[in-house]
Amino acid sequence: MITISLIGAGNVATHLYQAFKNCPETAVNEWFCRDLKQLAHVKDEVSLTNDLKHLKKSDLYIIAVSDDAIESISSALDFENRLVVHTSGSVSLYDIDMKHYNRGVFYPLQSFSKAVALNFSEVPICYEALRKEDNVLLKKLSNALGCKSYKVNSHQRRALHLSAVFANNFTNQIYRIAHEICEADGAEFDILKPLIKETARKIEDISPYMAQTGPAKRGDKKTIKTHIKMLDNELHKEIYKLMTKSIKETHGQG
Amino acid sequence: MITISLIGAGNVATHLYQAFKNCPETAVNEWFCRDLKQLAHVKDEVSLTNDLKHLKKSDLYIIAVSDDAIESISSALDFENRLVVHTSGSVSLYDIDMKHYNRGVFYPLQSFSKAVALNFSEVPICYEALRKEDNVLLKKLSNALGCKSYKVNSHQRRALHLSAVFANNFTNQIYRIAHEICEADGAEFDILKPLIKETARKIEDISPYMAQTGPAKRGDKKTIKTHIKMLDNELHKEIYKLMTKSIKETHGQG
Repeated sequence: MITISLIGAGNVATHLYQAFKNCPETAVNEWFCRDLKQLAHVKDEVSLTNDLKHLKKSDLYIIAVSDDAIESISSALDFENRLVVHTSGSVSLYDIDMKHYNRGVFYPLQSFSKAVALNFSEVPICYEALRKEDNVLLKKLSNALGCKSYKVNSHQRRALHLSAVFANNFTNQIYRIAHEICEADGAEFDILKPLIKETARKIEDISPYMAQTGPAKRGDKKTIKTHIKMLDNELHKEIYKLMTKSIKETHGQG
Repeated sequence: MITISLIGAGNVATHLYQAFKNCPETAVNEWFCRDLKQLAHVKDEVSLTNDLKHLKKSDLYIIAVSDDAIESISSALDFENRLVVHTSGSVSLYDIDMKHYNRGVFYPLQSFSKAVALNFSEVPICYEALRKEDNVLLKKLSNALGCKSYKVNSHQRRALHLSAVFANNFTNQIYRIAHEICEADGAEFDILKPLIKETARKIEDISPYMAQTGPAKRGDKKTIKTHIKMLDNELHKEIYKLMTKSIKETHGQG
């Protein structure tokens, strides 16, 4: 059994709590939040605290708070020789206070919304620790949750986090623009959903390089010109031009 | 039984042929291609021709060729009072020669690769015809294939085609850029695949507007600055800035 103290009450902490609760090999020993009202819904099933100075003893302390708050939380912890990890994609391993305890990172690379349920076993875990035995524990924890896990250093993790902004936030904004274009002409955005699904599915089998199709890849100037003319929104026009340029450059049409 | 003459041997024609072959309510009467060698693999199962002037009689003629070739193929057809459709997203209904026969559009909105198998029943069909009875036939054909179908006018179809360039080509290029960023730092692109899948899945339940997360949406200037600094490729930097601007504008951070 791996005992865990969870620190924070945001999306990541909430999804981690559910995953630990459903896992027979883990137990949440204590859950910390400054404002205990936020955890009222679980007060009958887990020990709660708002006192960082007197946390119970656990095998692992997980700081799942916003990037900016990691350092201050970590320096407020008042114990020694215990393992403390954060869950951030962009914060270095060295941003956790290093004097008093062992540190690591346990970064679940997924987009979490409180309202959207998630099968946690499909979330890849990027872990990192300074001591070998801590790496072993973090891998064991990932396995217990049924997650694929990857030993990733801070440099690689930062690159993954940046890539995730492209693959998630920017992709989603592209969907949003497609939605706007459809709506402006009274076409149903729903018609595009199978294409969006297939676009994501295709790269399971082949690389994005191989999967590319369309006017920019073909160098079909006539269609590109028509499309740019069709777009009313200046920002959408700019995005069309820039993405077309990028595809051309990748596929040697530039 | 709906009898069909198929014209063209590209990706769309090839996938349509497979779908018609597997469907008990449709029969491909004849398949036209200028270069019969391209159809050699099906010569024992369907009647082939390279003579546009003497096509057999069918309920429906489907011109599945590149946009630029539709007009010339359509004016070369030598019969009257039969239904001819093309499969293009961007070519108007009026680009099919109108003197001799009835015309329509049968646009399967999906990304087709010859090498990648596809469950055709998951492809939405956008159809359009001038005569009411032709619309009925095109809807019946979509139903026979198990496809969802939408009556869409040429204006809406053009908007859908443009949206599809965003949702498919541009999204795929965003994946490609994420791939490059990972590789440059020795991180595995595979780690991002569950996130990519979830990003596409999420908009089945909620709109792209509601699904947005990340530094641009939050207005997290510090992370945005760090990310722009991390990007070596000038074009990737520009795309990061432009997509961030677009998200900020959509979510009132602009």
